[in-house]
Amino acid sequence: MNYYPKPLGKLVSELSKLPGIGSKSAQRIAFDLLDWSREDVMELAKSLVNAKDKIHYCKKCYHIAEEELCEICQDSGRDPSVICVVEDPRDLIAMERSGSYHGLYHVLHGTISPMDGRGPDEIRLKELLERLKTEEVKEVILATGSDMEGETTALYIARLLKPILKVSRIAAGIPVGGDLEYADEITLMRAMEGRQEL
Amino acid sequence: MNYYPKPLGKLVSELSKLPGIGSKSAQRIAFDLLDWSREDVMELAKSLVNAKDKIHYCKKCYHIAEEELCEICQDSGRDPSVICVVEDPRDLIAMERSGSYHGLYHVLHGTISPMDGRGPDEIRLKELLERLKTEEVKEVILATGSDMEGETTALYIARLLKPILKVSRIAAGIPVGGDLEYADEITLMRAMEGRQEL
Repeated sequence: MNYYPKPLGKLVSELSKLPGIGSKSAQRIAFDLLDWSREDVMELAKSLVNAKDKIHYCKKCYHIAEEELCEICQDSGRDPSVICVVEDPRDLIAMERSGSYHGLYHVLHGTISPMDGRGPDEIRLKELLERLKTEEVKEVILATGSDMEGETTALYIARLLKPILKVSRIAAGIPVGGDLEYADEITLMRAMEGRQEL
Repeated sequence: MNYYPKPLGKLVSELSKLPGIGSKSAQRIAFDLLDWSREDVMELAKSLVNAKDKIHYCKKCYHIAEEELCEICQDSGRDPSVICVVEDPRDLIAMERSGSYHGLYHVLHGTISPMDGRGPDEIRLKELLERLKTEEVKEVILATGSDMEGETTALYIARLLKPILKVSRIAAGIPVGGDLEYADEITLMRAMEGRQEL
């Protein structure tokens, strides 16, 4: 027997497609939505379609953008001689929040992961190489994650670019405020290797 | 500085209004949605509005319904002389899934909770009393939760209805498959009190 009226069942199944939303959460959200005002539901529905229609990827760095180029690529105050390579727009936003970087970016939209069958052609690496031909870049900073996929990707790109220009990798080590007691062995090893003279 | 293009920021803030979705999950969902096809996003948006437009509460029992009466109230095969009182449409669905009940329902849409300032007028209790005047009901089964609010609500309704008709309460005890070791003291106490001769 079907316990939901059809439109509700459909909504639950649509919501279940969202990342991190299982069928129980989808059900909870759907029932909650039934108690929303029609205007509020419309507002949510519109914001979905609007985001999809208005946002695409920057033609240059592949960050999210409303116009052809993203706000960062359009910003003449940024240093165009450095490109920071990240996996994902969210990583870029995290980096921007830190306020520690004032160059341009390149968003790969993924990682190289031979284990999962994802090769270099499945990320925006070709596009990075194209940029390096036309833009005057002095340094590429590899800011992919410090997990295996991130490291593999950084190593692969470093090997490609090192003959051409300066390539650096963001530091791995213990997080600020982190206690050594709770850091894993590899992080501690990396922190030790990356030690700097004071 | 605003790190998101506006339509994305709006989407994140709309998604954060959903129950159980914090700002991190909302961000994750929003970025995931950008990679969906436009058709899939439209499908989700439509299912939201459609559910809101097509579903309302049954005029009789206040379960969710597409027509004036819900499927259960319309079903002539159900026993109209018993009403099972639940807090929420989800509880009703859970009860239906168990297949153990064939009477009608009444959905309160909440609980009485003096601690939170919710009195009997804020749930669909008046509507239950009205039903008892016009429908020929022999028994009311109180199937509110076994937490404090559920118990308070059940006690309150029992006191109101006991002079008029048979009132029962679903059993509390150890869940089937449950290990006594992990049951809390109150559950064990209730299980002991509710013991039945074999």
